[in-house]
Amino acid sequence: MDKPDQGQPDEKLAGLFRAFLQDFRWEDVPFLPYKEEGSAPFKAISRQVLFQDPELSCELRYFEVAPGGYSTLERHQHSHGVMILRGEADVLVGREVRSVKTFDLVRIPPMTWHRFRTRGDAPMGFLCMVNVERDRPQLPTEDDLRQLKRDPAVAAFLSED
Amino acid sequence: MDKPDQGQPDEKLAGLFRAFLQDFRWEDVPFLPYKEEGSAPFKAISRQVLFQDPELSCELRYFEVAPGGYSTLERHQHSHGVMILRGEADVLVGREVRSVKTFDLVRIPPMTWHRFRTRGDAPMGFLCMVNVERDRPQLPTEDDLRQLKRDPAVAAFLSED
Repeated sequence: MDKPDQGQPDEKLAGLFRAFLQDFRWEDVPFLPYKEEGSAPFKAISRQVLFQDPELSCELRYFEVAPGGYSTLERHQHSHGVMILRGEADVLVGREVRSVKTFDLVRIPPMTWHRFRTRGDAPMGFLCMVNVERDRPQLPTEDDLRQLKRDPAVAAFLSED
Repeated sequence: MDKPDQGQPDEKLAGLFRAFLQDFRWEDVPFLPYKEEGSAPFKAISRQVLFQDPELSCELRYFEVAPGGYSTLERHQHSHGVMILRGEADVLVGREVRSVKTFDLVRIPPMTWHRFRTRGDAPMGFLCMVNVERDRPQLPTEDDLRQLKRDPAVAAFLSED
């Protein structure tokens, strides 16, 4: 006889394995818009939620930015742990702009302005770990933008749209 | 004047960017043993904690298994979200044994026996997302092993040590 805590019925164990498909898609993972159209400025970016599990306190998402695209410039109380999965990016975090490439790590601390932008002619994709319970992103005011652009490197990064 | 919530002092923004180095190591990420020697059966496996942040409810770890190596056969109440990052593996989850390769996804539900084993002659590395607050892994009893080995595929997987 199986013990109750060991012998889960097979139907509870669905979705254990999901294969990586071509073009950075995954089996049984919906290909989604980055966020609601018109909700905030962004360009050429998609979202796939790789892990969103009632037993996990975080989600793992994969975002992909087409050449010339970028994520929204935003900040929030919650934090991000990011790993670049393909391609190259220029990334703004706080007042720092850095070029990153596949498998590099980026930490987005609370209330820190951040934006990802593709670099070069290839798509750029990244994993982003985030708490399930989190606040909504804030967009910069005109005053916030003015302050950010006091730094020439940040101003140059933000002027590329 | 900077707003207090915007102008973090520079020293609070250390460690934002950590580069991927050769041989699947990362800047400022310690290369660690998988677990305490002798605490449980395993072979040829290392651990690097990529994200462990007071503001994140999960950790993201990178485990790497050398050819011929394997992780501990264990189960626990907490759950894992896994992405293979390099190489190929045979993986046991519950009663299922599957071959996986780079960027494939594996979900380990609560109280489900699991083990990773390299496949072929190359190292196999994987990302593992896990709750910060979690229970300790349980090892199989002789009875658990007997039950697991009733399935021929599981028995074959476990007999390879």
